[in-house]
Amino acid sequence: MDRYLIVSTDGHAGLPMEGYRDYLESKYFKAFDEMLPIQREMTRKSEELFLISDFNDKWRQGIEEELTGAWDGAMRNKIIDADGVAAEVLFPDGITEMNAPPFGAGLGLRPWGVDPELQWAGARAHNRWIAEFCKEDPVRRIGLAIVLMLYDVDEALKEVKWAYDNGLRGILIPALMGDYDAYNHPKYYPIWEFCQEHKMVVHTHSGPSPDYDFNLPGAVGVYLTEFAWWAGRPLWYLIFGGVFEKFPNLKFVLTEVSEFWIPHLLEMMDVRASVKHTSGKLGDFRSNLTMAPSEYFKRNCWVGASALFDEGSTAVRHEIGIKNVMWGTDYPHPEGSWPKTREKLVTYFKGMPDTEITQILGSNAVDCYDLDYRELNPIAERIGPAKADFVAN
Amino acid sequence: MDRYLIVSTDGHAGLPMEGYRDYLESKYFKAFDEMLPIQREMTRKSEELFLISDFNDKWRQGIEEELTGAWDGAMRNKIIDADGVAAEVLFPDGITEMNAPPFGAGLGLRPWGVDPELQWAGARAHNRWIAEFCKEDPVRRIGLAIVLMLYDVDEALKEVKWAYDNGLRGILIPALMGDYDAYNHPKYYPIWEFCQEHKMVVHTHSGPSPDYDFNLPGAVGVYLTEFAWWAGRPLWYLIFGGVFEKFPNLKFVLTEVSEFWIPHLLEMMDVRASVKHTSGKLGDFRSNLTMAPSEYFKRNCWVGASALFDEGSTAVRHEIGIKNVMWGTDYPHPEGSWPKTREKLVTYFKGMPDTEITQILGSNAVDCYDLDYRELNPIAERIGPAKADFVAN
Repeated sequence: MDRYLIVSTDGHAGLPMEGYRDYLESKYFKAFDEMLPIQREMTRKSEELFLISDFNDKWRQGIEEELTGAWDGAMRNKIIDADGVAAEVLFPDGITEMNAPPFGAGLGLRPWGVDPELQWAGARAHNRWIAEFCKEDPVRRIGLAIVLMLYDVDEALKEVKWAYDNGLRGILIPALMGDYDAYNHPKYYPIWEFCQEHKMVVHTHSGPSPDYDFNLPGAVGVYLTEFAWWAGRPLWYLIFGGVFEKFPNLKFVLTEVSEFWIPHLLEMMDVRASVKHTSGKLGDFRSNLTMAPSEYFKRNCWVGASALFDEGSTAVRHEIGIKNVMWGTDYPHPEGSWPKTREKLVTYFKGMPDTEITQILGSNAVDCYDLDYRELNPIAERIGPAKADFVAN
Repeated sequence: MDRYLIVSTDGHAGLPMEGYRDYLESKYFKAFDEMLPIQREMTRKSEELFLISDFNDKWRQGIEEELTGAWDGAMRNKIIDADGVAAEVLFPDGITEMNAPPFGAGLGLRPWGVDPELQWAGARAHNRWIAEFCKEDPVRRIGLAIVLMLYDVDEALKEVKWAYDNGLRGILIPALMGDYDAYNHPKYYPIWEFCQEHKMVVHTHSGPSPDYDFNLPGAVGVYLTEFAWWAGRPLWYLIFGGVFEKFPNLKFVLTEVSEFWIPHLLEMMDVRASVKHTSGKLGDFRSNLTMAPSEYFKRNCWVGASALFDEGSTAVRHEIGIKNVMWGTDYPHPEGSWPKTREKLVTYFKGMPDTEITQILGSNAVDCYDLDYRELNPIAERIGPAKADFVAN
């Protein structure tokens, strides 16, 4: 093949807010109708607070039609064809902030400051819609279910099974905040076991955070310093909790956290797990592990590297693990590479060994999500970027 | 001088639990008497949970007398003489877990899960005692007041002033958890202003964390991966909040977090503050800063590097800033260098340029705490380690 297969591991899809009503259980219609104008108002206010309404309005101007690819399947395929993308992993929150699932079940998923029952209802509404959306084109759309597993393991397991039965390929789990049992709790084993057995990939995605007071000076800087930590936090609970020891084929993906700091995280975990830096006074805590934390990462974890995959990320790709880094366009978010993915990829990857480009753009995702080259290669042969463009001059 | 001046920037002092009663306001006696057996029991249980009672019992065996240096001034001076230390910065929690200030006002200082009024009472009891302890030998004892500034700015300012008037040289502030205004809030300016004007150095120290469930597998590994983040968190609120921009002579010290990851933190802040990694959609948040985050760090911040200052720390000393790293023995904690500080320093620093050893062991602390060589050098000339021992063979 003289083209690259691109599997974007960071795409977003979601209905315009009001559209989720049709996917809700009817008993939540009233709450939904009450919430909708409030959510619209809050979204608008938040854009104003961040001084971003201008930015977002400008971004949306003139591409309103293309942005309907957030929920319109025909437009979606047209968009990703043009972008050179064969398949996508689909997270919620289509167009930034404007079509997140209701009741706080979007990317900012957290078990805090929301009503669990309503958040579940919102999550199920999205899951039902995204399953439908993916069934339209199951080869190109790798859908994730939102699974609020911190609230109720039985309910969560039911939802994971529903997701699997309905063609979804992984789950998005909440950040760790509030008074819930953390991901190192054995009560979650049935979820990990099901995910391992059925190749459902577990994800976190940047977004969730505590409530920063964005009226205070520098709060955005604080958020930007912390967001990757909040997104990554479940990872070290899983690693130190021995979850990957017990479920050696479980797969975890950390998405859109930028990549430059991942080697630091691996170093931090390995140093802290070593005798020299922990001191005897904290007793034994490694007997549930047979490998260094970074070794579990390399075996069980991937980074869904999107949007900002620049020199800072390429520089550390081997430290992260060349098999553990996957590309994502982040369509339709403004910080993503769409609609210039082809050009940007050449900028980022030109001169990199062909095997590494192949891995980062596609084959690592094929491994991670257990995809089928026989289905994907024909698409890539039609729309993938030409390998020749990536050869150093 | 043919000896090094050592100022240990991480020492601990505190009364045996029951001793704090005499320093409490009498209206808290009843609460104290009720709390004391519970605190003893919890300390013992916690040691058992961590499987550390053996370790700690073994550590204490045979050095019971030396450990009284945690509160006994004559013993303290004898101990640090033998260790080659001219002066020390004194945090609470003398002997690990066994003589912390009452009501959760010790190193694990946090604004969460405690009664603020009682915690204040415990903090004041310690402040009164440590002020008395430092007055016995004001050259060698640099005492810090525990200031629970998240609860009440007026009360906190009163306490900082009291501390200054009573010879204390800095403050230990709580970690950021719970529903309190964060350190980027302008309401704290009076505290920073007073500290800047009176050269009171602001500190955090490793220890505070949320309530991990240590019965769960790997929880200690999680804690060890996160503790430095919790200790460091106030730092990036201060930096991005523009506090060092507004108070350019304010001094902040991050203590006993190990050092290897500090360059990563500086990189994280600088990258996040750069245009390329933040994306326009989050609006403006840097107009309150005139420098890169790492530049504020190098101007206003220090690392109190203790106990684990091994090759991992020496390797990054220039990345942190050779003027920003200070040594600490962590006496009387078991993970510290006491009673073998002299030998350990030679192991860590032998062959390092003399000027750098001078900076790390003493002169950086002299700058940070505004100490007086005329008072310290005569002590170092008597007990400091011989420079000759540090020259490479």
